[in-house]
Amino acid sequence: MGLERLFEAKSVAVVGASATPLKIGHTLLTNLIEGGFQGRLYPINPKETEILGHRAYPSLSAVPDDIDLVVIAVPAAVVPSVVEEAVNKKAGAAIIVSGGFREAGNAEGERQLVQTARAGGLRVVGPNCQGLAYLPNHLCATWPVQKLAGSIAVVSQSGTVAAALADWATEDGLGISCMLALGNKTDVAETEAIDFLAGDGRSKVIAVYSEGLGDGRKFMDTLRRATAKVPVVLLRGGRTPVGHQAAQTHTKSLAGQYEVFASLAEAAGATVVDSLEALYDAAKAYAGIPPAAGHRVAIVTSSGGSGVLATDAGVEVGLELAHLSDATTAALRDKLPPRCSVRNPIDLTGDGTVEQYAEVIRTAAVDPGVDAFLAIFGDPIPGAAAAMAKLQREHTKPIVVCFLGGGEVEAQERRAFAEARIPVFSSPERAMRGLGLVAAGRRNQS
Amino acid sequence: MGLERLFEAKSVAVVGASATPLKIGHTLLTNLIEGGFQGRLYPINPKETEILGHRAYPSLSAVPDDIDLVVIAVPAAVVPSVVEEAVNKKAGAAIIVSGGFREAGNAEGERQLVQTARAGGLRVVGPNCQGLAYLPNHLCATWPVQKLAGSIAVVSQSGTVAAALADWATEDGLGISCMLALGNKTDVAETEAIDFLAGDGRSKVIAVYSEGLGDGRKFMDTLRRATAKVPVVLLRGGRTPVGHQAAQTHTKSLAGQYEVFASLAEAAGATVVDSLEALYDAAKAYAGIPPAAGHRVAIVTSSGGSGVLATDAGVEVGLELAHLSDATTAALRDKLPPRCSVRNPIDLTGDGTVEQYAEVIRTAAVDPGVDAFLAIFGDPIPGAAAAMAKLQREHTKPIVVCFLGGGEVEAQERRAFAEARIPVFSSPERAMRGLGLVAAGRRNQS
Repeated sequence: MGLERLFEAKSVAVVGASATPLKIGHTLLTNLIEGGFQGRLYPINPKETEILGHRAYPSLSAVPDDIDLVVIAVPAAVVPSVVEEAVNKKAGAAIIVSGGFREAGNAEGERQLVQTARAGGLRVVGPNCQGLAYLPNHLCATWPVQKLAGSIAVVSQSGTVAAALADWATEDGLGISCMLALGNKTDVAETEAIDFLAGDGRSKVIAVYSEGLGDGRKFMDTLRRATAKVPVVLLRGGRTPVGHQAAQTHTKSLAGQYEVFASLAEAAGATVVDSLEALYDAAKAYAGIPPAAGHRVAIVTSSGGSGVLATDAGVEVGLELAHLSDATTAALRDKLPPRCSVRNPIDLTGDGTVEQYAEVIRTAAVDPGVDAFLAIFGDPIPGAAAAMAKLQREHTKPIVVCFLGGGEVEAQERRAFAEARIPVFSSPERAMRGLGLVAAGRRNQS
Repeated sequence: MGLERLFEAKSVAVVGASATPLKIGHTLLTNLIEGGFQGRLYPINPKETEILGHRAYPSLSAVPDDIDLVVIAVPAAVVPSVVEEAVNKKAGAAIIVSGGFREAGNAEGERQLVQTARAGGLRVVGPNCQGLAYLPNHLCATWPVQKLAGSIAVVSQSGTVAAALADWATEDGLGISCMLALGNKTDVAETEAIDFLAGDGRSKVIAVYSEGLGDGRKFMDTLRRATAKVPVVLLRGGRTPVGHQAAQTHTKSLAGQYEVFASLAEAAGATVVDSLEALYDAAKAYAGIPPAAGHRVAIVTSSGGSGVLATDAGVEVGLELAHLSDATTAALRDKLPPRCSVRNPIDLTGDGTVEQYAEVIRTAAVDPGVDAFLAIFGDPIPGAAAAMAKLQREHTKPIVVCFLGGGEVEAQERRAFAEARIPVFSSPERAMRGLGLVAAGRRNQS
C-alpha cells in the first residue's frame, strides 16, 4: 500500500473531534476546515451530532461512506481500539497525534498497534507526531493553516523543525507544498514519503530532518530514485555520540556512523547539511533560484567588502567569478561613473543606484561568460525588488539577492522581494552557498 | 601620537560643510549634531557664515580655537591642501571621506597626503572611508546617528560590513560602542584602533573585518595585548586567492597566506571566523552572554528535535551536556508532567509552558553540575522574554535563548528579549556556537 490515500485523501475522519474550543480535537477539525479541504469531513464523537457545521458520528463504523484518512487524537489507552476500527472500516491511513507510546516507555503498545495496522493494510503516521499538511490537496491534517502554498516539501521527525522551515519559507515568499512530521515513525518513514513527494510534480525540493533512518540500503536507493527527479536536502540529528543519545531519549531511533552515512547520501545525490539554517537555505536555493547553466557568477555590489566576502564563499563552494568579455567591460566602463570598478565583482560603491544595478545586469546578461548573478545591496536602496523582479522576468540567468542595510527600507524591500518570489539571503556568504548548491545540483541532474 | 584626539575629540571641524540638504557636507554635520556631540563644532565653508545653527568659517586657519578632529569631504584634488592646513592648525586627526586616491589609481596622491600628515603629527583615517561613530563621546563623525549605545566595537575596512553589524546589534538590543570604517587605511589601521578600544572600558568585544593586515608581527602583538582585556573576533576578506584578488581591486591591500594567519591569530587569543554572520554571532555572544563558569550546559526545550540539533552543535564546539544531579532530576520529575523528559536535554514537549521553563531553570540553577542554560522555545510561547529576564536577574548562570515559531508572537517576544538585552539566536546551532565561544573565551582569559 502506497501513501496515496494519505496525501490524496478524499475523505477524512477526526477521532476525538470536539465542539469545545481550545481542545485538540476542536483545533484539528478547525485546521482541516480553514485549510480549505475539499473532500468529506467526518468528526467522530459519541456525544455530539454536529461539530463546526459537520455531522458528527459516534464511531468510524457509523460513517456511511469510505474513509481514506483517520486522524486520531484520543488518549493512548483508547488508540488501539480506534486503529482496529479503522482497519475494519478499510481506511487507508491513520495519523496518530497521541503520545504515550515508545517515547514514554510503552514500546509494546506501539508494536501491537503497528501489527494491527499492517495486518489490515492501514498505513500509520506517528504516533506522537504533528502529522501532515499537504497543500496540493488543501489537507491540513493536524497542522494549522499554511498561509502560502509553494514548492518546498518538508519531511521531518520533529514537528518544530518542520514548523521552523515552513515559517521561514512563508516569510521569504516561497511557501511549502508539504510538511510531514513523522514523530515515532513506527510505520510511515522518510523513504516512502520522499518517494511520493519526488513524484508529485508539486515539490521542487524535499527537505528532510531525521534522527535515524532504519534500513540504510533502502534509504540510499530511495535517495537515488528521488534525486533523479528533485533535489533532496538532508539534516541528520544525532550526528555526535551525545546528540545521538539525546535523539534516542526523545524518539528511540538508532543512528549509524554519521560520516559513513553522509558520504553515502551525497553519493546517492542528496545534499547533506549540518544545521537547521543550512537545511532551510538549501531548500530555499533549490526552490527559489532558477536553473543556472554553469558556475560562473557575476557579482554586482555597492560594497567592495561584501563582494570580497561573497567571492571567498563562492570559491569555497566551487563557483567561479565570471570573466567578463572585453565588450561587456567596455560597455560597463561606458555606462558607469568612473568611481565604479567594472572588474568582477562589479563595485558600484556606496552611491550605487537601482538603475546602475539594472544596467550592469542587462549588459552582462548577454555575455556568454556569465551564468548567474549575485546582486548585493549593501545599503538600503529602495526599489531594488521591483527592478530585480523585472530583470528576472526578462532574462533566464538567475539573479540571487543579498540585501543588507537594515531599517524600514530593508523591511519593505524584503516584503517586495518575497511577493516577487525572489530569494533574498541575509549575508553574502549564504547567498553564494545557495547559488553554489543550485549550480552543483543542476550539473549532477542534467 | 595615539588616537585619543580622534576618539575623544573635543572639537570637530567639517571641511566641505554645506547648507544644502542632501549634500554630503550637510549630512555629515547633521549626523554630528543629531548624534549629540557635546564638544565644539566648526563648519568650514568659504561661502557661508552659519550652517545648521553653527557659525561657519572660511578655512581651518580662521577657526579661533584648537581643533582635534577634521572631517574632510571635498573633491580629491582639494584634499591635499586641506590636510596641509590641518597640519598647520595642529589638528590631531583627520577623517578623509573623499575617494579618488589609491582605489582609483592615484596611489601617488595618497602617498604624498600621508607623508604631509605624518610629518605634521596628524593622524589620518581613510581616505575613501565611512569614518567613525564613537558613542562614549557621542561622536557620529560621518555615520548616521546610532540608535542604541552598547558594548560591541566594530573596526572594519568596509563601511557596509560595519553598518550590517551595527544594524543587527541594534535589532538585538545590544547596540555598539564604536564603528570605525578604515577605507584605504593609509595611516590609521586595525592595530591602533584595537589597542585603543581594548582599553576604553566601554567595549566588551571588538569585531574586526579586514582585507589585509600589514605587519603580521605587530598585528599579533596587538591581538595578544587586546585579548588579555577583551575578546577580539576577526573576519578576513580575501581568504581565497580569487577573493584576495577581489580585495586588491577595491582597496589594494595585501593579504598573506590565510591559514597561517588564522592559526597565528587564534594563538594570539583572537576568535577567527569565516563569515559575516559568524562575526556578528561571536560579537553578540561576547557582548551579550554573561560569563559561564564552565562548559556544562543544560538544555530546556519544547522540541526534542531542536534539543538534538543543539546537542550536536554543542559537542562540535566543545561544550558538554550537563549531567544533572539525582536531586535535580528527582525535583524535576516531581514538578513536571509525566510527558516531559527530565534527562538533559529536558524536553517539555510541544505543550511546554513558560512556567515550566522557569521551574526547570530555577531548579537546575542550584545544581553545581550546570554552568549555563540554553532555553529553546520551539513554539511561539508568549511571555518567554519576561520570564527569562526575571530568571537572569536572579541567577548568575547564563541563559541563552533560541526562539523559533514565527509570526506575531515571535516578533513580539524578540522585541521584549531585545529590550531585556537577552541575546536570542535564530537557530539552536547558532545559540550553542555562541555559548561555546563565551565558555572557551572566558577560560582562556581567566
